[in-house]
Amino acid sequence: MKSFSRRRFIGDTSMAAIAGTFIFAASNQSTKEMKNVFVHHVYFWLKEKDSAADLSQLVAGLKKLSAVTTIKQFHIGKAASTSREVIDGSYSVSWLVLFDNKADQDSYQTDPIHLKFVEECASLWKKVVVYDSVDM
Amino acid sequence: MKSFSRRRFIGDTSMAAIAGTFIFAASNQSTKEMKNVFVHHVYFWLKEKDSAADLSQLVAGLKKLSAVTTIKQFHIGKAASTSREVIDGSYSVSWLVLFDNKADQDSYQTDPIHLKFVEECASLWKKVVVYDSVDM
Repeated sequence: MKSFSRRRFIGDTSMAAIAGTFIFAASNQSTKEMKNVFVHHVYFWLKEKDSAADLSQLVAGLKKLSAVTTIKQFHIGKAASTSREVIDGSYSVSWLVLFDNKADQDSYQTDPIHLKFVEECASLWKKVVVYDSVDM
Repeated sequence: MKSFSRRRFIGDTSMAAIAGTFIFAASNQSTKEMKNVFVHHVYFWLKEKDSAADLSQLVAGLKKLSAVTTIKQFHIGKAASTSREVIDGSYSVSWLVLFDNKADQDSYQTDPIHLKFVEECASLWKKVVVYDSVDM
């Protein structure tokens, strides 16, 4: 009985190891896809597009804004050097924020840190475009 | 001497533990920010914006396109239900792709999988807008 149990244990362990390999392979593939995410992407056009001071102030404001706790990940960017007819590279700053869901994004909109950011920085930009996306 | 060494070891270990706590806290904060990333965000407007079949075909095409090996992460999205003056929610599909760098994005543009995607799906959309962003 002891021997049978041990064999069964070894068998189960091997099966688990094989199953584990498949699960690992599958997750390696699937982790490339972001799921269950609310993508909030904002593009800012500065009033004074050549002002390094205004750019710094906006970036500093966004860094403070990133403290909002519902933000899972963020990226502060500038236009890349790519250039094709379909590319809009005219903006000054890209602000990409990932939330877990719409409720977290809604709460960010009214977070005191966000309201303070708008109060302190809104005079810097002449145009903002926002794209909010959720899983298909 | 032995006793001194042991005390010093214990002291060093405690210092390392304290330092580790700070490092952990700091990295927890900083991992929210995506760095060293090339953000490629594409918005598609379908010609037939109410065609479920065309939407499915485009999404299926993007899923195949995600096999390009230089893609680190991607998200296929639709417009969220948010609505404010600055929000553009008129697009049909959002295709967000993260690359490690511009070279990887350049290589994606000429990858046979990408060329095949364009060949198979370009007839579906009437407008595409692309924003490419890199670290500030």
